[in-house]
Amino acid sequence: MSEKRQLILDVDTGTDDAIAIMAALLSPEFEVLGICTVSGNLPLANTTENTLRVVSLLAPQVPVIRGCAGPIVRDLDPRRKYCDNEEVLEDEDGNRIAFHVEEFDGLPPARIAPAPTNAVCWMVETLRAATKKVDLVLVGPLTNFALALRADPSIVEHVGQIVIMGGGCEERNSTSAAEFNFFMDPEAAQIVLGCGAKIVLVTLDATHHAVLCGEDVQRMRSWRTTVGDFVAQITSERIKAYTLFQPLFKPDSASMHDALCILYLLDGSVITKTRLLPVSVDFYGGASDGRSVMDTRSVPARAPNCTVCLGTDDEKFSRMLLDILGRAKG
Amino acid sequence: MSEKRQLILDVDTGTDDAIAIMAALLSPEFEVLGICTVSGNLPLANTTENTLRVVSLLAPQVPVIRGCAGPIVRDLDPRRKYCDNEEVLEDEDGNRIAFHVEEFDGLPPARIAPAPTNAVCWMVETLRAATKKVDLVLVGPLTNFALALRADPSIVEHVGQIVIMGGGCEERNSTSAAEFNFFMDPEAAQIVLGCGAKIVLVTLDATHHAVLCGEDVQRMRSWRTTVGDFVAQITSERIKAYTLFQPLFKPDSASMHDALCILYLLDGSVITKTRLLPVSVDFYGGASDGRSVMDTRSVPARAPNCTVCLGTDDEKFSRMLLDILGRAKG
Amino acid sequence: MSEKRQLILDVDTGTDDAIAIMAALLSPEFEVLGICTVSGNLPLANTTENTLRVVSLLAPQVPVIRGCAGPIVRDLDPRRKYCDNEEVLEDEDGNRIAFHVEEFDGLPPARIAPAPTNAVCWMVETLRAATKKVDLVLVGPLTNFALALRADPSIVEHVGQIVIMGGGCEERNSTSAAEFNFFMDPEAAQIVLGCGAKIVLVTLDATHHAVLCGEDVQRMRSWRTTVGDFVAQITSERIKAYTLFQPLFKPDSASMHDALCILYLLDGSVITKTRLLPVSVDFYGGASDGRSVMDTRSVPARAPNCTVCLGTDDEKFSRMLLDILGRAKG
Amino acid sequence: MSEKRQLILDVDTGTDDAIAIMAALLSPEFEVLGICTVSGNLPLANTTENTLRVVSLLAPQVPVIRGCAGPIVRDLDPRRKYCDNEEVLEDEDGNRIAFHVEEFDGLPPARIAPAPTNAVCWMVETLRAATKKVDLVLVGPLTNFALALRADPSIVEHVGQIVIMGGGCEERNSTSAAEFNFFMDPEAAQIVLGCGAKIVLVTLDATHHAVLCGEDVQRMRSWRTTVGDFVAQITSERIKAYTLFQPLFKPDSASMHDALCILYLLDGSVITKTRLLPVSVDFYGGASDGRSVMDTRSVPARAPNCTVCLGTDDEKFSRMLLDILGRAKG
Ligand SMILES: [Ca+2]
Ligand SMILES: [Ca+2]
Ligand SMILES: [Ca+2]
Ligand SMILES: [Ca+2]
Repeated sequence: MSEKRQLILDVDTGTDDAIAIMAALLSPEFEVLGICTVSGNLPLANTTENTLRVVSLLAPQVPVIRGCAGPIVRDLDPRRKYCDNEEVLEDEDGNRIAFHVEEFDGLPPARIAPAPTNAVCWMVETLRAATKKVDLVLVGPLTNFALALRADPSIVEHVGQIVIMGGGCEERNSTSAAEFNFFMDPEAAQIVLGCGAKIVLVTLDATHHAVLCGEDVQRMRSWRTTVGDFVAQITSERIKAYTLFQPLFKPDSASMHDALCILYLLDGSVITKTRLLPVSVDFYGGASDGRSVMDTRSVPARAPNCTVCLGTDDEKFSRMLLDILGRAKG
Repeated sequence: MSEKRQLILDVDTGTDDAIAIMAALLSPEFEVLGICTVSGNLPLANTTENTLRVVSLLAPQVPVIRGCAGPIVRDLDPRRKYCDNEEVLEDEDGNRIAFHVEEFDGLPPARIAPAPTNAVCWMVETLRAATKKVDLVLVGPLTNFALALRADPSIVEHVGQIVIMGGGCEERNSTSAAEFNFFMDPEAAQIVLGCGAKIVLVTLDATHHAVLCGEDVQRMRSWRTTVGDFVAQITSERIKAYTLFQPLFKPDSASMHDALCILYLLDGSVITKTRLLPVSVDFYGGASDGRSVMDTRSVPARAPNCTVCLGTDDEKFSRMLLDILGRAKG
Repeated sequence: MSEKRQLILDVDTGTDDAIAIMAALLSPEFEVLGICTVSGNLPLANTTENTLRVVSLLAPQVPVIRGCAGPIVRDLDPRRKYCDNEEVLEDEDGNRIAFHVEEFDGLPPARIAPAPTNAVCWMVETLRAATKKVDLVLVGPLTNFALALRADPSIVEHVGQIVIMGGGCEERNSTSAAEFNFFMDPEAAQIVLGCGAKIVLVTLDATHHAVLCGEDVQRMRSWRTTVGDFVAQITSERIKAYTLFQPLFKPDSASMHDALCILYLLDGSVITKTRLLPVSVDFYGGASDGRSVMDTRSVPARAPNCTVCLGTDDEKFSRMLLDILGRAKG
Repeated sequence: MSEKRQLILDVDTGTDDAIAIMAALLSPEFEVLGICTVSGNLPLANTTENTLRVVSLLAPQVPVIRGCAGPIVRDLDPRRKYCDNEEVLEDEDGNRIAFHVEEFDGLPPARIAPAPTNAVCWMVETLRAATKKVDLVLVGPLTNFALALRADPSIVEHVGQIVIMGGGCEERNSTSAAEFNFFMDPEAAQIVLGCGAKIVLVTLDATHHAVLCGEDVQRMRSWRTTVGDFVAQITSERIKAYTLFQPLFKPDSASMHDALCILYLLDGSVITKTRLLPVSVDFYGGASDGRSVMDTRSVPARAPNCTVCLGTDDEKFSRMLLDILGRAKG
């Protein structure tokens, strides 16, 4: 009988998602029941293919399940879709500079195929069949799990805690008000935040300090492993994008948002500041569309529903992450 | 090998839903694959129990599948929920006057239980497994099928046509702009109308002429069957409610909206007027929330997506319906 | 002491506005206190210049007051501005085909200048100074009077009745849901409809039968007057646009919406059908943005606030209009 | 020829407004051209009467002009009106505890009447007649000036700078997202922020440190002047309300938001931190309705339109304010 913590991952891979997946699969503390994909950083076809490659490399027995190709309802209104920041540019040589590599050419082709179902129904069935509580790590737009909750609200009884990469208190990225994952599907975020489970919200205020830097890239290259080379390559590209579009507290660094959720589950002390807060999401389509509204007033109007992570021990983060990634051989 | 037309029904039973289910189950032209329930006229527990009773009576082998307990996202905003019409009152003796009987006391208790799954996943699986095209008859809020489309958009390839009771061109009921089924889940309606399948929209302009009247009640009573007595009773209650809240073109009558969809599939000539129109749904939460917006201009802005039913042969409707209901024995 | 009916006109001239102005100025029954301009069919600079030319020709002593250059708040959201119909095209020879002539080249240059104030403040001052009730004829977007009501709500006490060209019950033009004047400033329309004054709403259902046709054009040309030639010219252009974009019930004809308001004040029998209805305006920005929501249910939810005009005696309309326009000499 | 700085004040008096007015009228550096009132902290009748009393006491020659009784369009939607915080309670003895005294019983009755016009038209006329640039101090909901801009946009050419008490970066009060003045009329705030003038935004992040405390109350009482007694009384009530509803950084203190705007004009160094930022206002009616959206990202999407005040020298604030208020004799 397994004493491991059972996890379901939900990802829009995406470079930092790839690293989160690797960290989970390389941690013996976890049993990953399955990895669901969703549209987000890239279209669903890409996030699924990228996920299949990562899983093929490290744990081909773990099912990858294709999820939703778009948000629940936000794309019914074409006027809601545009971020107001730059995310993709070309450098002077015509090379694409972006946060996310479209295709994971640095990894071998996938040896596995997606499961013959969809993420919504797979989540419902897997949770209903669970014999102990399962933790969810949701690091893309929250479409899949929100729809699963709508299809069968009773699944929440089988959930341990939900660790979400999403939202921001003082920090934001996609717009002047909102973080990317919440912005891409605000209604899904609001559904999940209201589901009644224990929720840990790993916000941009924390993840903007969960960085790898140029030195870390060098160290990973020195391993001469597939994982090391691949993570070094994508980190290096992310560093270029952050330097250009969103300079962080530390020069020559890039945030690895999603990986922080896995590290938090392994060792909560990587998070240096949390607050228990009422959090809702604006889904009205205006200047604050997708904003995580946190009631930080001294006398809040509602009871708290989230443990909000607001700070990261950046040295511990990079040390832990390289430790784990360094376990991959070959 | 069956030559019957395969149907999936989606209902919020509801008195006129009950009659639609009966008409479908009593018509040898159809093979009913399953009946999904949804919150709407009554809460999900009631619509499911009522459906189970009707199906137990006439075709206990047909699966009944519990669906969604509320709209996709509309209830995230509590301000969107109120109709501006009266739907339930008490008469001078304290008896409830309403369009829908809460519990079907006129029928024996259910002998069957709901299928051990949910409507969203059952729809996805059933359609994916279909060996020929399946017709959908959706006569409640469109939540279940909209979510199934989001979970797996490829299911639309297995759909023949979709017959929807919903919307109105000149007629409306729940608000001064909107019909009930669309009003209860406007986003679901918009998702379904945009799915690309062949859609027949049976609007209030047609169903307000799909009536049974006091004479029909007498005739059904004369049969001395369970179906006759039950339909006579609920029709009689509906006549009271229509007379009070929404007087129709014909005195002493009540609309049997949902049944018209089944009769249309049996004999299209029961509909006397159709137009091929571009139809969308307003889901912005204002005075027109849930309105079916039909582009009736001489030069419309978009291509049509619906065959809109705008008139009914009321005599043919009641004659056909009583013929079919009269088939039930015992 | 004048026994004439005192009028304030509010216009976005615009060809049919021009004819409404002429009809008012040529009718001895009216004393026109002033004519306010607003952005609408054309930008404010054009609607003001066009109005000045018409007034210069017929009654240069009547003040023309420049009004608002845009809607109250709708343009704060750039996503709300687009009609979904065509309104301007070029024919095969590169000539502009449009409902509204941009510049009134058929009239002599204006001999008067706009009053040295703005329409909002002029309306407030004029109504506060009125010694008897003044009727308002509002035939553009309702921005000016809505803002005047906000600046000083007490002015409504000095208003007799308000005749508005706006909205539609079954008819619409700018979008599949909305009429132009309401669509251009939905919040203004909602403010004015709720002001408590007696309101006559001259909708598209009426004005689409308030037409002039090719024969009328010939007759006006035969007068050999400036007014006859000018109205013949712009009517002829409108007929081209209607034929192309919005064919009406009568071939080779064009609607003269705004003029119907003036004719209604002269002889109410030009309107053949009215209903007293509760009317509100959708201002939520969705598919029904700017729609006039009329509660036509047998049991409406609110008390009526408008006399809604739904039909026109088209022969009487053209006869009356040509009678009046034929009074202009020279 | 006056070398004084000409000011127009716009207020919803309101206790901190009263102190701002007093500070302006007691400062020889300013020539106050007029004080416009608006609905906000209290209904228009109260804010006007309270303003008249303050002005009667200190400068009865300054005109007080009644402004708008409600927001531009927000009250068209009754669903947008509720704050989610408590602002008025009763203590155990049934005494009202609130931020704002409804009637200024501590002052003698007004000796002056409101000007026989309205704030919108008065602002337009006064600015058009100005021979030098006029500064605006707007410390209530921004309805009046927003409407004046709509009535005549050219008035902005006569404006020097606009100092606004409104918005918040990390701080908020009326809801978990929004500050009171912006929340009460979000569209007005968006219109004013976009007007193109130089704007100084004095946010809650600054004003929550612009406090008077119990010691200051004692000192003001010791003056034995009408002003001293009155300000001591209302400050004392505010301290009770802050202690109960919104405890501040300093115990036994209350924020005097509006007064900080006047002090800033006298000595900019009372503000300890400013940022030049792009600021817009969410007016979509959701969880962030009325929020001041500040683009604090390292690479903002638009050019800055506001100097945002984010910190206050609290000791300097109270010292300056008591100095000024202490000038009032009798
Ligand atoms: Ca991600
Ligand atoms: Ca139904
Ligand atoms: Ca017009
Ligand atoms: Ca104030």
